[in-house]
Amino acid sequence: MPQTGNEASVLTPQALLEHWQGHRRVTRRMIEAFPEDKLFSFSVGSMRPFSKMVQEFLMMAEPLARGVATGEWVAIEERDLPNTKAGLLALWDKTTTALNSILGAMPIDRYSRVDKAFGKWEGRGIDQILYAIDNEIHHRGQGYVYLRALGIEPPAFYDRS
Amino acid sequence: MPQTGNEASVLTPQALLEHWQGHRRVTRRMIEAFPEDKLFSFSVGSMRPFSKMVQEFLMMAEPLARGVATGEWVAIEERDLPNTKAGLLALWDKTTTALNSILGAMPIDRYSRVDKAFGKWEGRGIDQILYAIDNEIHHRGQGYVYLRALGIEPPAFYDRS
Repeated sequence: MPQTGNEASVLTPQALLEHWQGHRRVTRRMIEAFPEDKLFSFSVGSMRPFSKMVQEFLMMAEPLARGVATGEWVAIEERDLPNTKAGLLALWDKTTTALNSILGAMPIDRYSRVDKAFGKWEGRGIDQILYAIDNEIHHRGQGYVYLRALGIEPPAFYDRS
Repeated sequence: MPQTGNEASVLTPQALLEHWQGHRRVTRRMIEAFPEDKLFSFSVGSMRPFSKMVQEFLMMAEPLARGVATGEWVAIEERDLPNTKAGLLALWDKTTTALNSILGAMPIDRYSRVDKAFGKWEGRGIDQILYAIDNEIHHRGQGYVYLRALGIEPPAFYDRS
């Protein structure tokens, strides 16, 4: 008999990780699609260039996953982040491996445990992770407008392969 | 003892519904933030105006939830959608109630059941719902650029109240 109500699962840890990594593959293709100079300089409406958004994704992903997994919140300093396209892509790939390792081994109780991310944002582990994913989708969508404004066809949003 | 592995839950049906409705509250504030004429006319990089994106969210939300819940995929025709700001907001609120009703009562097995959405896109119920949420975040992020380009401060992304 099917269950209803809020005790039951709609998403497993492995499915959530794969969902994030699928989005991260799209974001990686976005970084690749930008000409190097435009990645670091182009914007619309006095917003940040896409490189700054990518740096934010990187500052959020591995440190956040590690914080949810361990309760230790260690931020990456912005000055320590790469400022070349190749450097961003290399750190992107390192983060991919780190997320698989951290979240792949994380005990399930960490998803429901409430903690204060980086000493600032209180929420359950699942909420912290969903926030990182949603923030990436949100700003990446802005990057799509930048590419369109540059006359460059962006990668397909629906292709997560 | 904490569980690990992919049998366990990180998100309940009720939490997923609330997550979507939180995002939908942000999107509703975005619709409100656009001046009526800009909502239907303004864009960047030859993209669609934000009204067309909102119409897409509406074409996707209730019909998709109903399809996942019942296996019956009945599309809304684009010509039947409102083409005023007040009309879009009214349908937005009607959809909010409908989603609470449909997803609030949906048996849990529907999330893992594979179906072909609108006869076209195959996936599990949970994947169909996540796609609708992610698509809304993605295009709404584009709407943020439109508002910034218009010199209008958009609603806070992180405020889901």
